[in-house]
Amino acid sequence: MPKIWSQTIEAHRDAVREATIAATAALVAEHGLSGVTMSQIAKDTGIGRATLYKYFPDVESILVAWHDRRIDAQLAELVRVRDRTEGAGPRLDAVLTAYAKANRAGHPPADPAAAMLHRGAHVTTAHHRLHEFVRELIVDAAAAGDLPGDVHADELAGFCLHALEAARGRSAAAVRRLVRATLAGLAATP
Amino acid sequence: MPKIWSQTIEAHRDAVREATIAATAALVAEHGLSGVTMSQIAKDTGIGRATLYKYFPDVESILVAWHDRRIDAQLAELVRVRDRTEGAGPRLDAVLTAYAKANRAGHPPADPAAAMLHRGAHVTTAHHRLHEFVRELIVDAAAAGDLPGDVHADELAGFCLHALEAARGRSAAAVRRLVRATLAGLAATP
Repeated sequence: MPKIWSQTIEAHRDAVREATIAATAALVAEHGLSGVTMSQIAKDTGIGRATLYKYFPDVESILVAWHDRRIDAQLAELVRVRDRTEGAGPRLDAVLTAYAKANRAGHPPADPAAAMLHRGAHVTTAHHRLHEFVRELIVDAAAAGDLPGDVHADELAGFCLHALEAARGRSAAAVRRLVRATLAGLAATP
Repeated sequence: MPKIWSQTIEAHRDAVREATIAATAALVAEHGLSGVTMSQIAKDTGIGRATLYKYFPDVESILVAWHDRRIDAQLAELVRVRDRTEGAGPRLDAVLTAYAKANRAGHPPADPAAAMLHRGAHVTTAHHRLHEFVRELIVDAAAAGDLPGDVHADELAGFCLHALEAARGRSAAAVRRLVRATLAGLAATP
């Protein structure tokens, strides 16, 4: 197959995936998770049902894809924050602050899907990447002497990511206090 | 209506609610959230569809009731832990430890519903009670001098409850470290 043709096919597939994810997100926002079916999604996107099933086996797999995209976008922003900050300790601080601020707006109330997937059956690969990203920052901060040397970085990454979800709906000042409490928790672990 | 008769009716209603909640939990565990309908629940419980709708308007409201019962049971256990511990600081420590330990087993993988509801559109009344319970322990610990005097107890309750969700799937030693990090976060806030 000529390269230009395979690129065209890939672009088409991407477009189908995007349209499916967008339509599903809108349907879930309107009807809730349990009110959305593959038939409705097919109807709303104008994609044939049989074709739709070639892309996604069920509604939940579409929501996983949607959720992964959101986390990936968030992660890209956190990488930018890291790369413009000097020093392992300040980097950790800056990234956790950015993450907490992003969580302030949080999952909008009409978005039960993200909530379900975030803590649901599967920890998605995107969530795993986010966890790894924070874990590495903690390892670096410990190596630089900004955290105790023998931290359990993997556990503490989970601690940070969970604790900073408490930022949802809080004021800017409350988010600063939350980040400070989280950093104190990191520093305290022997 | 004689009291004995109204009691009989109430007992009957409770039984219908219990049967509905149990059947829904089982169906969700088997088919996932998006695979459960009111018709199926009616069929599985043997309750007429029209009757079912008198008790619950939709699947999600049944899951809210289910979730609230789980949190209420957890809260009752935490109250027992509090009441057998002396001193505000030790009480906070003991309750947070018990909460973290309960989270270790966490929501089983087949239980996306609890996850959805826990972080979803509605913070349930049971979750609110749990939050209030922890907030009061923090206020007491601050009053007793076991925490800084001017803590933001409401924010810190959210911090604790979120942070300790990181206990899921962790070892007992990791859970102890997590509780210690959380307590350090509480103590650090000015």
